[in-house]
Amino acid sequence: MALQQLEHADEQMRECIDNCLEAAQVCEWCADACADEGEEMARCIRLCRDVADLATLHARFMARDSGYHGELASICADACEECAEECEQHDHDHCQACAEILPECAESCREMASA
Amino acid sequence: MALQQLEHADEQMRECIDNCLEAAQVCEWCADACADEGEEMARCIRLCRDVADLATLHARFMARDSGYHGELASICADACEECAEECEQHDHDHCQACAEILPECAESCREMASA
Amino acid sequence: MALQQLEHADEQMRECIDNCLEAAQVCEWCADACADEGEEMARCIRLCRDVADLATLHARFMARDSGYHGELASICADACEECAEECEQHDHDHCQACAEILPECAESCREMASA
Amino acid sequence: MALQQLEHADEQMRECIDNCLEAAQVCEWCADACADEGEEMARCIRLCRDVADLATLHARFMARDSGYHGELASICADACEECAEECEQHDHDHCQACAEILPECAESCREMASA
Repeated sequence: MALQQLEHADEQMRECIDNCLEAAQVCEWCADACADEGEEMARCIRLCRDVADLATLHARFMARDSGYHGELASICADACEECAEECEQHDHDHCQACAEILPECAESCREMASA
Repeated sequence: MALQQLEHADEQMRECIDNCLEAAQVCEWCADACADEGEEMARCIRLCRDVADLATLHARFMARDSGYHGELASICADACEECAEECEQHDHDHCQACAEILPECAESCREMASA
Repeated sequence: MALQQLEHADEQMRECIDNCLEAAQVCEWCADACADEGEEMARCIRLCRDVADLATLHARFMARDSGYHGELASICADACEECAEECEQHDHDHCQACAEILPECAESCREMASA
Repeated sequence: MALQQLEHADEQMRECIDNCLEAAQVCEWCADACADEGEEMARCIRLCRDVADLATLHARFMARDSGYHGELASICADACEECAEECEQHDHDHCQACAEILPECAESCREMASA
């Protein structure tokens, strides 16, 4: 997606916005799909919901250059890492998609947090 | 809660904001707690998540007197009604709390939609 | 962006998700930037904030295949159209970017609403 | 409001949820109203928007007992404090309402962050 129009955002921030919005999408899907798989997926549902909320807000804070995007980046990275570790233990397509997408999001959020 | 300071909001709108924020809280709790109860609660999780999102945004749109609060009121009422019907079929404390709180929220949203 | 992994989403829905997430980004930026331009931009700020919220929630509802995505699509289309009309009257880069991006989002939301 | 039904939440958390939801309402109002007051309110709009988003998400994370509510509490407290300092410099009713409500929210978020 990489919205080239965002004048205040450099390449690193644009990439982080994209990663966060992808993470949010895949976690919305995974949280929803896990509801059909029984109580052993409870932790996955919870972490996916948290990532969906945090990554969405982080992307929006970057898009409007909020003074709090850096603080949020750090929480978002934590949640992505914990969620990726949980998801990689499950064979469902949605969990595997999370496990594939979230580490890159975690990494770019970690870089934004220390920028 | 009823924030008396909101000058643009009459008593009906303040009450609807309160109802929406209560609905969002109880649905956040219910969606989370249902994750431990197995796949027969999947529909409950989904509807509670939708109500939590819709009621929160509806409350925020009323708090800032957005021109779109009336359109959102109608969807929010629909979701509260469908969610209350689902929740009242389950004996869990969280489902019973939803079934108790959501009808009043649905009613006040319906009134705001036609105001 | 177009997250190919979302198994439940056909090409039309994936495109609408992308359009909504672009609309949300550009409107976050425009609402923020307009705050520095004085009170004649008040209507632009308000409409951009509404689009940012509605388009974000619409994208998330599609990503999780919520039963309410169709109802939300219609409001989102309305808000995008009204916001695009407002933004095209202003020469600022951020307003012009909104005026360029929002009509496509409005159109795909309208199609989703009637699907 | 204080939703007594939330079984996992003790009195301190319930009070923090209430404070966050009041902070979100008053900041939605203030950000909206400041748009009519000209560019000297730009910082106030920005901080109010950030508080509205952060306090809302913090309240929702507490309502569902998310593992990330403590990390979010700390950012929310920072934003409430910075916003209160900005708002108390302005005589508008909405700014004075923010200056009155936000310090209590900041304090309870700070307590939740260290709990």
